[in-house]
Amino acid sequence: MSHTAELIAVGTELLLGNIANTDAQMISQGLSELGINVFYHTVVGDNPDRVRQAVDIAKKRADILITTGGLGPTCDDLTKVALAQAFGRKLFYHEPSAQRIRDRFAAMGRPVTENNYQQAMIPEGATVLDNDWGTAPGVAFAADGVHVLMLPGPPRECEMMFQHRAVPYLRGLSDGVIASRTVKTFGIGESAAESVLRDLMNALHNPTLAPYAKPNGTELRITAHADTEAEALALIAPVEEQVKALMGHYVIGVDVDSLEEVCFSLLQAQGLTLGTAESCTGGLIAKLITDRPGSSAIFRGGIVSYTNAVKHHVLGVPQDLLDTYGAVSPQVAEAMARGAKQALGCDIALSSTGVAGPDPDDRGNPIGLVYLGIAWGDQCVVKALHAGTMATRERVRNQAAQHSLDLLRRHLTGLPLEES
Amino acid sequence: MSHTAELIAVGTELLLGNIANTDAQMISQGLSELGINVFYHTVVGDNPDRVRQAVDIAKKRADILITTGGLGPTCDDLTKVALAQAFGRKLFYHEPSAQRIRDRFAAMGRPVTENNYQQAMIPEGATVLDNDWGTAPGVAFAADGVHVLMLPGPPRECEMMFQHRAVPYLRGLSDGVIASRTVKTFGIGESAAESVLRDLMNALHNPTLAPYAKPNGTELRITAHADTEAEALALIAPVEEQVKALMGHYVIGVDVDSLEEVCFSLLQAQGLTLGTAESCTGGLIAKLITDRPGSSAIFRGGIVSYTNAVKHHVLGVPQDLLDTYGAVSPQVAEAMARGAKQALGCDIALSSTGVAGPDPDDRGNPIGLVYLGIAWGDQCVVKALHAGTMATRERVRNQAAQHSLDLLRRHLTGLPLEES
Repeated sequence: MSHTAELIAVGTELLLGNIANTDAQMISQGLSELGINVFYHTVVGDNPDRVRQAVDIAKKRADILITTGGLGPTCDDLTKVALAQAFGRKLFYHEPSAQRIRDRFAAMGRPVTENNYQQAMIPEGATVLDNDWGTAPGVAFAADGVHVLMLPGPPRECEMMFQHRAVPYLRGLSDGVIASRTVKTFGIGESAAESVLRDLMNALHNPTLAPYAKPNGTELRITAHADTEAEALALIAPVEEQVKALMGHYVIGVDVDSLEEVCFSLLQAQGLTLGTAESCTGGLIAKLITDRPGSSAIFRGGIVSYTNAVKHHVLGVPQDLLDTYGAVSPQVAEAMARGAKQALGCDIALSSTGVAGPDPDDRGNPIGLVYLGIAWGDQCVVKALHAGTMATRERVRNQAAQHSLDLLRRHLTGLPLEES
Repeated sequence: MSHTAELIAVGTELLLGNIANTDAQMISQGLSELGINVFYHTVVGDNPDRVRQAVDIAKKRADILITTGGLGPTCDDLTKVALAQAFGRKLFYHEPSAQRIRDRFAAMGRPVTENNYQQAMIPEGATVLDNDWGTAPGVAFAADGVHVLMLPGPPRECEMMFQHRAVPYLRGLSDGVIASRTVKTFGIGESAAESVLRDLMNALHNPTLAPYAKPNGTELRITAHADTEAEALALIAPVEEQVKALMGHYVIGVDVDSLEEVCFSLLQAQGLTLGTAESCTGGLIAKLITDRPGSSAIFRGGIVSYTNAVKHHVLGVPQDLLDTYGAVSPQVAEAMARGAKQALGCDIALSSTGVAGPDPDDRGNPIGLVYLGIAWGDQCVVKALHAGTMATRERVRNQAAQHSLDLLRRHLTGLPLEES
C-alpha cells in the first residue's frame, strides 16, 4: 500500500517571511527517498484555531501527517494542543521528558523556567521521540487511520529529529524502496550537463536520471524504485557507469558532499599535508577544510594575508613582486603558495589573490579576476579564474575557494590542472 | 478594511524537496510591509485537480490569492486553467502577449514552439502583468470578492514580477502599513529573553513584541500597524527603549544583521585594525569578517595555526607553554593573541583554541571547551567558553566565532568582557 503524507509547518515567522520553509524541503526529500508521496505542504501561524483548521483539512487527504514547529515554550506548545484536540487525545505530564529538560538545562548551566515544562506535556498513547538536539521532544501517534508525527521547527533540530526519529518510524510503514545515487560534478553547468546526457535521460524509465544545479556543482541523480534496496542499486549501477563516462574529468565523486570531502580523503589516503595562503578568500578555504572532523591530520594551517605587509612579512612574498605586478597577479599567487608551503611546513599549499568586489582594485583589475596557486615539491602552477564582473562578492569568494579545491583534486588524482 | 492574503505555490519540485519555497518567503515579506495579513501558505504539485482543490479552500478564507508557478509551457499552464475554472472565467488568446513571446524568442535566437503560445492564453477580464524577466506573463483579476494574482515560479522572475507588478496593484488595495524594528541580542536564549520580557509582551497590543531564536542570537521584533510608516515608527520607539533597557548588555544593535556587522562598524568608526589567530575555528572568524565589502580597511590578516609547529614558528607561542599547558589552555590563547598582534601589525587581535570535536583532545579536555583571547595595547584577556559536550563540531566552531566577536564588541563599546 502506498502512503500519502502532508506537511504542516506552524510558525508566524514563516508567514511574515522571516525564514523560508526549509524544513518542508528537507522532509520532502526524505519522504521521496522512502517512496512516500507528498501532495501538499501547508504553512500556518501561531494561532490555535487556524492550526486546528489546517489539521482537519489535511487528515482527510493524507494518512501520514508531519508537523514542524509550534512545540517551543514561546508559542504555548500550540501544535501539540491542536493535534491532540483534532484527534481526541488528552495531554498528560510526561516525567521522563521533564527530567530530560532539567538535565539539558543543567548541562548548559541555565535555570529551567516554568514555560520550559510545557514541552513535557504529551498526548495520551503517543510515543515520545527523544530530542538529543534541543529541548522540545517530538511526538508520534496513530489515530483515525492517520500517522501523526510532530517535530520541532528549528532547522537543525528538525533535520536530526527527522533523520534519527521519524525515518525509522516511517520505514516500518512503507513498502518498496526508492534508492538513489548522485554523481557529483564540478566545473560544468546544469544545461551543459543536460545537453550531454539528454539521450540517456530520455531513454530511461527506472532508474531515472535528473540533473540538479547546486551552489558548488551540478549533481546528476539516478533514482530507482524496487522491492529491495539491493535490487534498486543493481538497476542504478550500469547507469552510474554511463554517466561517469559521459561526464569525464568533471566527476568529483559519487554520493559525496563536496570538493572539501573529496580532497580530504585524497590527502588522507596519500599521507600528505596541506596549507593555505589566502587573500581574497579571506580564510574561506581554511574554514572549508577544517569544517571536517579529523582535519588536523591533513591540515597544517593557513595564513590570511589581507594586506601587502602580511604577504611580505609572514609569507615572504618579495616586495619587488608586489610593487611591480601588484597583489593581484600570477607572480604574487605563486610567491604566496611557495611562501605558505615554507612557512607552514606542509606538502602542498594553495593560494588565492583576486578582486572580490564590490570595487575593482587600484590597478584596474576587474571584479571577479582571481589567481589561484598550487605549490608542491619545488613546483607551482597558477590558474586564472574569471568569475565575471557581474558576480557578487560572495559568489567570487565561493567560486575561488571551490576552484582552488578543484585544482587540488586534479593535482591529487593526476588529472590535467585545467578543466577540459 | 484590512486584507487577508493566501499564497499557493504550484510545483511538484517543491513537494519532492528539490527546492525550498523561497517565493513564499519573499512575497510574505512584501505583504507584511504593505500591511496585508498572511494566514496560510499552501504548496501543491503539478496536478490540476489538487490545484483546483487548494484554490477552492483558499478562496473561502482570503480576499487576496497569490499563486506562484505553474505558468510555464512544461506544466500545460495548469495554474491559469485551474484559477479560471475556480472563478468561472474562460481563457482567450491574448495577441499582445503572443507577440511579446515571439519577440523574446527572436532576441534569444530560438524558435517558438507550439506550447510556448499557451502562455498567451489569459482569463477573460484579466489584467496582463507584463513579464520583462521571462516568457510567462502574469495575470491579475478580481472575482467573487477575491483579488487573484498569478506570478511565475522561478525565484528571480517571481521577485521582479512581485516588486514591479504585484506591489503596485496591491498598494491600491491596502490601507495602513506595518512597520517593525528588531532588537538583536547575543548571549541570551529565546526562553530566558521571554521570561524577562513577558510582562511587557502581555501588556502590548499595538505594537506587538515577539522573540525569535536565530542561529546567532535571539531577535526581539517590535511590530506596529498604523496609517503611515511615521506613525507606526512612533508607536515602536518607546517600546524599543524599554526592550533595550531590559536586555542590557545583551543588545548588540537594532536592525543589524550580525555581530560581524556591528564589529565592522565599530572598528571603522574608531579607526582600528584587527587580526586573528585561529586554531579550532580554522579560519571562520577571518571568513566572517572578510565576508563584508570594504573589510580590507579594518582587517590586516589572520593565521590559522592548526598545529603546534605553526603556533610556535608563525605566531611565536613559546614551546614551553605548549609543552606545559597544552594547545588548549588560557596561556596559549593569550600567547596566540599577543603573537598575532605582533606578526600582523594590527591594533587588536582575537585568538581561539579549543576542542571542536568529535573527540576530546589528548589531554582530556572536553569537546566544546574553547579559550578565546583578545589582545590590545599591552593587555590581553582570555575567556573560557563551554559550548557543551553534546554540541556538534559545527556548533562549537560557530559559537566560538560568535563569542570571539562578542568579546570584540564588548571591548570596543567599553562593556565588561564577561556576559552579564
